[in-house]
Amino acid sequence: MDTVTTVYSGACPARGLLDRIANKWTTMIIGILGGAEAPVRFSDLRRSINGISQKMLTQTLRDLERDGLVVRDIYPVIPPRVEYSLTSLGRTLDEPLRALSEWAERHMNEVHAAQHAFDAKSI
Amino acid sequence: MDTVTTVYSGACPARGLLDRIANKWTTMIIGILGGAEAPVRFSDLRRSINGISQKMLTQTLRDLERDGLVVRDIYPVIPPRVEYSLTSLGRTLDEPLRALSEWAERHMNEVHAAQHAFDAKSI
Repeated sequence: MDTVTTVYSGACPARGLLDRIANKWTTMIIGILGGAEAPVRFSDLRRSINGISQKMLTQTLRDLERDGLVVRDIYPVIPPRVEYSLTSLGRTLDEPLRALSEWAERHMNEVHAAQHAFDAKSI
Repeated sequence: MDTVTTVYSGACPARGLLDRIANKWTTMIIGILGGAEAPVRFSDLRRSINGISQKMLTQTLRDLERDGLVVRDIYPVIPPRVEYSLTSLGRTLDEPLRALSEWAERHMNEVHAAQHAFDAKSI
């Protein structure tokens, strides 16, 4: 295994990138933007992702913008309207992340059963 | 969007599951076990994942075992030998997680360029 250009090397930039994309908030934000037909407002993102704090959403969107995955458009109206959409690079990430969400939704019952069996064995 | 059985609902078990599978350590552990032809020892896992602490590896493996994704086998030799492998459920997660690692490795240069452009604009 090449130790410099894989996520397994702590020194490889792909490791930090994997850390940012492989997390639940990124998965949900990219999923919403990827499924939307038009840019999405901050307030609509926040409403769609149950439990995300304003601070976490702001920080995650900023990281995604810096990584070139999300575009932020500001419309100079009063109050200013801020909308987010995926870049073409961001759209290439939508499919793998969507596969992950779908895996979680599809297999949650099997996982739940495994947890019960594990906990029963551990008592 | 159904608010009860999707990851977007904080109350849905799929949310917690997504949180455990969508993280860099899980991605790397499942990647190694999925690519191995035989069960893998704890010490070999630790050596293959640059920078993971003993505590983080132990906890992540325990979560994966509880979720029914990983099997732990203990051989009663001295010192005891502990080996890990994927369950059939764990093998179904290997492909989506591998797609994510590969995305990070394939696009790290584009992301790096985007970061430079963003930082230059922000000064």
